[in-house]
Amino acid sequence: MEQETIVITDVAPRDGLQNQAVAISTEGKLELVRRLAAAGVRSVEATSFVSPRAVPQMADAADVVARLRGELPDLRLSTLVPNRKGLERAHAAGAPEIAVVLSATETMNLRNINMDLAQATAVSEETLAHARELGLRTRAYVAVAFVCPFEGEVPLSTVVRLAQRMREAGAQEIVIADTIGAAAPAGVKARIAALADTFEIDRLAVHLHDTRGLGAANAWAALEAGVRRFDASVGGIGGCPFAPGAAGNLATEDLVLMAEQSGFATGIALEGLLDAVGYAESLLGRPLGGRSSAWLRRRYGAEPVT
Amino acid sequence: MEQETIVITDVAPRDGLQNQAVAISTEGKLELVRRLAAAGVRSVEATSFVSPRAVPQMADAADVVARLRGELPDLRLSTLVPNRKGLERAHAAGAPEIAVVLSATETMNLRNINMDLAQATAVSEETLAHARELGLRTRAYVAVAFVCPFEGEVPLSTVVRLAQRMREAGAQEIVIADTIGAAAPAGVKARIAALADTFEIDRLAVHLHDTRGLGAANAWAALEAGVRRFDASVGGIGGCPFAPGAAGNLATEDLVLMAEQSGFATGIALEGLLDAVGYAESLLGRPLGGRSSAWLRRRYGAEPVT
Repeated sequence: MEQETIVITDVAPRDGLQNQAVAISTEGKLELVRRLAAAGVRSVEATSFVSPRAVPQMADAADVVARLRGELPDLRLSTLVPNRKGLERAHAAGAPEIAVVLSATETMNLRNINMDLAQATAVSEETLAHARELGLRTRAYVAVAFVCPFEGEVPLSTVVRLAQRMREAGAQEIVIADTIGAAAPAGVKARIAALADTFEIDRLAVHLHDTRGLGAANAWAALEAGVRRFDASVGGIGGCPFAPGAAGNLATEDLVLMAEQSGFATGIALEGLLDAVGYAESLLGRPLGGRSSAWLRRRYGAEPVT
Repeated sequence: MEQETIVITDVAPRDGLQNQAVAISTEGKLELVRRLAAAGVRSVEATSFVSPRAVPQMADAADVVARLRGELPDLRLSTLVPNRKGLERAHAAGAPEIAVVLSATETMNLRNINMDLAQATAVSEETLAHARELGLRTRAYVAVAFVCPFEGEVPLSTVVRLAQRMREAGAQEIVIADTIGAAAPAGVKARIAALADTFEIDRLAVHLHDTRGLGAANAWAALEAGVRRFDASVGGIGGCPFAPGAAGNLATEDLVLMAEQSGFATGIALEGLLDAVGYAESLLGRPLGGRSSAWLRRRYGAEPVT
């Protein structure tokens, strides 16, 4: 029987690093991506074209994109852009793919970018449309698509409506994000089912955080619902700056372990991911790793930093 | 809509404590069970009537059973018995329910109890039959029902055959155990489906370990396959002697969190479980807790031991 394939976008270089207290050199970021690529990762969210004043960690976005394109031309590179200005910087740097982020609630948008939901939606739509005119590949995140830290449970109908708006504005891939890691598997199943009624499930990706230890269970619920595209972050690095209570992303190694042991092909080697985790630990100076990491390290004889 | 209920047997007092280096007093065991009961747990695996020389931690089995029956008459109490001799001790102590353990492979039985699979099966059958004659409630574990540390992947047909044998011998509940925590959700789904073809799914329970961080995902796969009876261990206490340092059993708090957030009723309060985890930490002198514990402690303002 032919194995089904899942596509994992490693978001450690962007979602993982953006809030770290330690400033990471451009060379450090490139080396992390090199190690991910060596492990078999074929898609990364490389950086973010946000204001360097707001997020100094991402000030080298143009350099990161240019150098990765030169060094790893076959790696799929996505870059976050907050608006048309960010898009223009991304395009000038040679970014082949951009992603916009639309939070699903009024309060999250107001707190995060000082816009209401209608304004934020319009900015994302305009950015997507322009990106398509420029011939770029496009993703749109629907953030806090399960629970908002300010408004609580987000209505399913809102998530479906916003996802549909992003799709119509030109997003080739819609990423449903559990930004604060508050989802449970039954909710994942219900949301995916509703979204799959709205557009092709192959356009849908899921972005999970592991705050409550349910990241892998939520990913399994999404897999069972037919999703084959996932964000994950090697070592579980990450968190959300504007969302109180957010902890790390679902770890790439946890997702790969679960998927491969369940008969899916990821193209990614666990031993290579452990090497990337070890490198990320040396960059950040602290222990990292997903829920499987104690076992993986015994299995492959790798030692965590102490 | 009426909520579906799941039944959780907390195995911390037996599976959790039996391999701990620290000797736990009878009073300590009783207090742990009291706190579990106060949290809403209605079923525990209280102790094991094994040889006190082999497992000194369980030497007070008769006393534990007698005192718990007196103090908490409504709590469902299961006790492990290795054979007819253990059964007789359990019966004399007033145990209302026993469980036998049958490992699914030749090598595991030889290493564990120096019997081949046929001998071990016969011992379990005889013990179950006698327990039914004595009017006791009965469970039968099929251990290493996924992967054996010596023989690798265990054939599904073997697991189904052994479960059927235990059922025919009088086991009222069959517990499929991922003894070394090597299962993945696709395997759980496949095994449950095959077993549910053989006998009523309400007779089936699942016992998971969290060695690779997939405990909650595996529990979700079992829930989706229709299983409503689970073993779990508060704080994730436990572990398998074949994987030293491995994470222990699926933590009761992780299972309760996932199930309740997915719309199932457990009757168990997370805050009460945190209290039991804190008590277990004081008994064992080390930090405990499942994958959700960092979040739960923030949520309920409890502090881990340091």
